[in-house]
This record gives sequence, structure tokens and C-alpha cells, in this order.
Amino acid sequence: MARPQTDHDEMREQLLDCAEQIIRERGPVAPTVTEIAAKCGMSQSNVYRFFPNKDALFEASVERWFAPFNDIMDEVVESDLEPREKLFQFFARRAALKAARYEEDPDYFQSCMTLGEEYSDVVMGYIDLADHYMAIILGEAISAGYFAGMTIDQLVSPVNLMLQPYCDPELTMRYPTATEKNLRIIVDTIFDGLRGDREVQKSEPLRLAS
Amino acid sequence: MARPQTDHDEMREQLLDCAEQIIRERGPVAPTVTEIAAKCGMSQSNVYRFFPNKDALFEASVERWFAPFNDIMDEVVESDLEPREKLFQFFARRAALKAARYEEDPDYFQSCMTLGEEYSDVVMGYIDLADHYMAIILGEAISAGYFAGMTIDQLVSPVNLMLQPYCDPELTMRYPTATEKNLRIIVDTIFDGLRGDREVQKSEPLRLAS
Repeated sequence: MARPQTDHDEMREQLLDCAEQIIRERGPVAPTVTEIAAKCGMSQSNVYRFFPNKDALFEASVERWFAPFNDIMDEVVESDLEPREKLFQFFARRAALKAARYEEDPDYFQSCMTLGEEYSDVVMGYIDLADHYMAIILGEAISAGYFAGMTIDQLVSPVNLMLQPYCDPELTMRYPTATEKNLRIIVDTIFDGLRGDREVQKSEPLRLAS
Repeated sequence: MARPQTDHDEMREQLLDCAEQIIRERGPVAPTVTEIAAKCGMSQSNVYRFFPNKDALFEASVERWFAPFNDIMDEVVESDLEPREKLFQFFARRAALKAARYEEDPDYFQSCMTLGEEYSDVVMGYIDLADHYMAIILGEAISAGYFAGMTIDQLVSPVNLMLQPYCDPELTMRYPTATEKNLRIIVDTIFDGLRGDREVQKSEPLRLAS
């Protein structure tokens, strides 16, 4: 995350620190401008100079939460690693950051998850961005000869599903088996086994037990 | 699930129906024997003939919840399908049953999940049983030449991780992309790509973005 460059940026960061502190203290309720002003000892009209309303404040908080994840994705995608290693790093580094954040304050982490579910429209853009970055890696893999017979669009869902325990922050710490070693095995399995040119098998009809 | 064969069994089922009804009405709190007696219009001492305490009642409720899943696993494992198709059916049929139960009453489904988390020692045996059944299928796959260089024990975690959206009932309905078609793709990927005899790749050191 870029450090604040100006007084204006620095004040903005301080207000976001206040917002974070309020959530840490009382749980998953988005702070209002009034609350931030009180917490920072600043007039409400002064806070409005930085955040015109509660939504703008909340969106900036979400942006700050995601910024290091975006930096990781950008760094991995821009690197000259080969596609298999890129996909591994893409998930491993973000999973490690999620785990570190969870460990630092599990309740605050859970509050962020709850707020994220509540304001899913704000969060959705960041999820789409992650899919976009992943699609670049998958495209490079296709160019390198992997995933025969499949398009990027066909790949995104199954790859995401196979990696959900490393991807969905709600699942952080839910699966103790979601280790880096198993991530390596899963990424290798995807690169060696996922293809669209095998003969289609006919599914047995689903019969539910009585 | 076997139908009750005797008056005793039938009465037991009625009491479990009462327990289920109480949870449906008030949410995720395990009913007591006193509450069941009142709900069924039966004396408490009479209920004790069937369930000596709240724990016995709760454990029987959990057993009933899992019984159709165990039937599915048993039927699939005992079938003469080939291993790849067995693994597919093993997850597809249970996922379909979970989805049907969720649709029938989402709040009751969520109550069962919450109670399952709270009494995880009661539920653990059923999760272990599912792993046991899956291990049989994976063993048959190894015998058929799949998963070169891997033992059953080494397979269970990565296979479970790749299939979590189909497996963990907490995740039912969380991933709309967890379709039967994508399950087929994932199972094929596992059978064609998961192996333990590839050259070990050295992982890049994890560097977190600043």
C-alpha cells in the first residue's frame, strides 16, 4: 500500500484508522461520519472534506483492506514466472496474508467478513478484479499449451472452485489442511489434469437414497 | 433411511419429529427432554424410556440427519461403477440432497449447521465416516492405476480441498458455480492430474507486498 504523500492523504489515513478502530472495538457496524468525527476529535464538517458521507468512508475502508491483495496480484501477474508458478504464488501469497490478518485479530477479521457480506456490491468489484488477474494467468497458461480445448471463460469457475479454501477469506482458518504443500499439489493437479478435449462421459442419472 | 419397524421405533421417530419441529420453530437450540415431552403431550418419564437425556436425544437427531447421506455413500461405494464415476456420484448425490434440504427450509438448514458447529464432537464421527468411504474409492482408483506415487492418506486432504464447495454443507448455496457440470470437470481433473511421482518443484519464497 502506498504511504500517504501529502497532509491531505495523511489526514485521510488517520480517519480510516479511526474507522478501523471503531469496528475493532464494537464489531461489524459501519461507522458514520459523526462517529468518526467524535473519535478523531474533529468537526463533522472537517471530516466531510475527506469523506462526503458514510458510504464514501466505507468504500475507502474496503479499498484499503484490499490494497495489499491487489498489490500481490499485480506483482505476481507482472512477474516473469511461468504460469504454473504464477498461479501458485497468486493463491499462496494472498492466503498467507489472510491467515496473518486473521491471527492478528480474529474478531476484527470476522467483522470485516460480515460487513463484506452486508455490502457485497462494494466488495464485488474486488472479487471481479481477482478473477480478471487470474484470467490473465490462465490465458498465459493456454498460450503455453495447458488446458487443451478450454477457453479462459470455461476455466475460471472450475479453477476457482478447486481453490476456494485458499481463496474465499470467509474460509480462512476453516480448513487446517489448506497448507502451502497441499496448494502446490492442487495447482499441479490443475495444470496436469484440467482439459476440455477428453471424451465427454455420460453422467449416471442422479438417484437419491429413499 | 429405514422406516420404523416396531411401535417402539415409531414412537422414537415421533419424538425426533417433535425435536425437529422445535428447532424449525425457534432456531438453533437443542431441545431438552422436558420440551419434547410438552410438545408431544407425553410425560417426561415416558420420554426417558426412549432418550435418557438431552444428549441422547440430540445424538439421535444428528444420526437421523446424516442417515440418508450414509445410505448414498454406502450405495455408491458398493456399486460396480468404475472409480472415477464413483467419486463423481459420491459428491454429486450428496450435494443434490444438501441443496434439496436447503431449498426446503433454508432457516432450518442453517440451524442444523449452527448446531453442528456447536456440537462438533457429535458430528465428527460422520465426517470421519465420509472420509472412510472416500478412502475406499481412492484405494480402488490406486489399484486401477490412478494417482501414481500417492498413498490413500496423502490423497484424502487434497481431494477434499478441491471438492469443498460440494462437500461442506456450510458452503451449500454459497457457490452458484458449484454445478454438476463443474463437478464432472473437477473429478476428471483429479483423476487425470493428481499424482505424486512428478519432479518436486522448489517453491519461490513467499514475499508479501509491503
